[in-house]
Amino acid sequence: MDNFEFSNTTELIFGRDTEKEVGRKIRQYSDCRKILLVYGSERIRKDGLYDRIAEPVRAQGIEIFDLGGVKPNPRLGLVYQGIELCRKEEIPFILAVGGASVIDTAKAIGVGVPYDGDVWDFFMGKASPEKTLPTATVCTIPAAGSESSLSAVITNEEGWLKKSINLNLIRPLFSVMNPELTFSLPPYQIGCGVVDMLTHVMERYFTNTRDVDVTDRLCEAVMKSIIINGEKTYRYPDDYNARAEIFWAGAVAHNGSLNVGREQDWASHRIGIELSGKYDLAHGASLSIVFPAWMRYVYKHDIDRFVQFAVRVWDVDIAFGKKDEIVMEAIRRMCGFFKKLGMPVTLAEAGIPEDAFEEMADKATFGDTIPVGHFVPIGKEAMIRIYQMCSVNCNI
Amino acid sequence: MDNFEFSNTTELIFGRDTEKEVGRKIRQYSDCRKILLVYGSERIRKDGLYDRIAEPVRAQGIEIFDLGGVKPNPRLGLVYQGIELCRKEEIPFILAVGGASVIDTAKAIGVGVPYDGDVWDFFMGKASPEKTLPTATVCTIPAAGSESSLSAVITNEEGWLKKSINLNLIRPLFSVMNPELTFSLPPYQIGCGVVDMLTHVMERYFTNTRDVDVTDRLCEAVMKSIIINGEKTYRYPDDYNARAEIFWAGAVAHNGSLNVGREQDWASHRIGIELSGKYDLAHGASLSIVFPAWMRYVYKHDIDRFVQFAVRVWDVDIAFGKKDEIVMEAIRRMCGFFKKLGMPVTLAEAGIPEDAFEEMADKATFGDTIPVGHFVPIGKEAMIRIYQMCSVNCNI
Repeated sequence: MDNFEFSNTTELIFGRDTEKEVGRKIRQYSDCRKILLVYGSERIRKDGLYDRIAEPVRAQGIEIFDLGGVKPNPRLGLVYQGIELCRKEEIPFILAVGGASVIDTAKAIGVGVPYDGDVWDFFMGKASPEKTLPTATVCTIPAAGSESSLSAVITNEEGWLKKSINLNLIRPLFSVMNPELTFSLPPYQIGCGVVDMLTHVMERYFTNTRDVDVTDRLCEAVMKSIIINGEKTYRYPDDYNARAEIFWAGAVAHNGSLNVGREQDWASHRIGIELSGKYDLAHGASLSIVFPAWMRYVYKHDIDRFVQFAVRVWDVDIAFGKKDEIVMEAIRRMCGFFKKLGMPVTLAEAGIPEDAFEEMADKATFGDTIPVGHFVPIGKEAMIRIYQMCSVNCNI
Repeated sequence: MDNFEFSNTTELIFGRDTEKEVGRKIRQYSDCRKILLVYGSERIRKDGLYDRIAEPVRAQGIEIFDLGGVKPNPRLGLVYQGIELCRKEEIPFILAVGGASVIDTAKAIGVGVPYDGDVWDFFMGKASPEKTLPTATVCTIPAAGSESSLSAVITNEEGWLKKSINLNLIRPLFSVMNPELTFSLPPYQIGCGVVDMLTHVMERYFTNTRDVDVTDRLCEAVMKSIIINGEKTYRYPDDYNARAEIFWAGAVAHNGSLNVGREQDWASHRIGIELSGKYDLAHGASLSIVFPAWMRYVYKHDIDRFVQFAVRVWDVDIAFGKKDEIVMEAIRRMCGFFKKLGMPVTLAEAGIPEDAFEEMADKATFGDTIPVGHFVPIGKEAMIRIYQMCSVNCNI
């Protein structure tokens, strides 16, 4: 186990009707008189969520300024708008109502407001945020875990650069999670979310760090629960209990507790981001295609870790066959799970052509100068090979 | 799953040589010029730990006031002394160096200093703390998890009343955990600590709340790791990796993440506390005796939960026999594990007579008016029966 420092200060308020607590909770943390409410589509007005949140907030004497229109792969342009609005109106607190795109937008605005330079500096690694406006969330999508994570991912429209910042400073003060608010999500979005949270654990699980038994087993516990409840919640969207489990699993997957003292990988996310950017493919769908291919490419690097994954997570019997066969069976089972969630496992299933592998690999590795991932560092040639393997159906 | 609110703000600094970070960390959180350093025996002076901590603390311009002499089952009398010293010297920050007894003493002093009344009021439920001096810890014993928990247990010498407070306010600001500092602990203390942390998970695991799959599996993950690494660290005290796993498992077991959205039990702790008080028996030893008996008394209340425990935690094959037989086999395996750690599993093994069952049961239930525990509420007669079952060897 490596030395580590860990803290997660976000308070989570979980369960039925909890969105009504937002006003009280803001007041607990702040004496603010104004908040910026960041959201995506106008759906939250039609279904009454906006009013259910706004009413108790206003009852605390708090004025609400709206910033709607956040899209998937949230854009830097809207972050700039939010920063300008907060400065002009002297708004000291940001509330995000939505999924990770909305939350990440709020986090980026939060560090942008007190910064003299361009907030994009932080995402390009030119500067590190030292202050933030306090942020809070009402999370409505079980997926990325941004509601208690230290990450924010923003896309710069110029050149479609998707970049992240990761630091404790940007964890929300509190997040409200009511599983009922997620019942109306379309099945495809649930499928994408479940894949995303499973891969958040897998990016942590495949590590070169030795002697990490507690976190290995915690990862396996969360993965098993995602597999069981993911399928259940996809089939029965208004089953409160399955939805509650998957919502909580998504938060645990990305809150940082599963990666303490261990190196993480994140190659598959990086490889998938290029697919998402070039073909406007949902983040979850890029991962259900890339992860099986990445696994087949790297598993020999530490076959015993993959056998452990097969046996403990996918219940492949240790006597199933040779180590390679055990691993391949686990990947097949994983692909079968992704398919049950309506997700693609090959480029063809997502309608993606095979003509830009080199371009994407070149971009992701900065012209083959910086490999992606840590379990096995993936350079340009390796990434092209993985893209090629994305066209092979893993059931074969 | 029940609605819940959860936060854990303690920062953990884990690994080799981390005690040297204490000065820097205090300064990160506070501009204090004085701290109270609470500890147990003078051993920390002889082995150099005191100086390794004190030097970088003083280098930050911080004066250290000592409060040594904390004993197991930490006493209210020393808490009063600490409160008085902090008030007299205007000390605004408390650092605990030791195990849970030391840390709990620091937490109690922390809430006592800014309170006008008697700090014992909090433990008797007559008042609730609203303020605390900030506390931090260098934890040197893998056991109770007090280093990031919201609990403090203090014993009032008058009448030997052992009482706890539980609230987020008293979580330490930060805790330093270096597994190497635990190498020199005597085997008996390691055995007690491992039993304690396992039972911290079991008190959460046996619940009447339905649909708690994620937390069930997280509990099982931590229990399996405690079982494997507990035996290993008992046999090989200077194996850094096993000690690191058990140290971390103990923190996770009691940091609150394993009980979100679920009712907890805690009957066995309450039943064990009477044994500890009356016979000066170590906390862990009381639990290794009580828990098997409690299980045999209550398992029929929810035999399926006990079967799940047997199969998933103790690897009892589902075809081992009837449900009762599967459960009994799990209890036998658990007792076998306790014995491998040098712990007693019957009263006789601990040299405890059987002549005070009624007295202890009467005291714990306040004259049979308030039952203990939630999974199955245990009244006076039931508690006497459980004490009787403590004399039966569970291998029979």
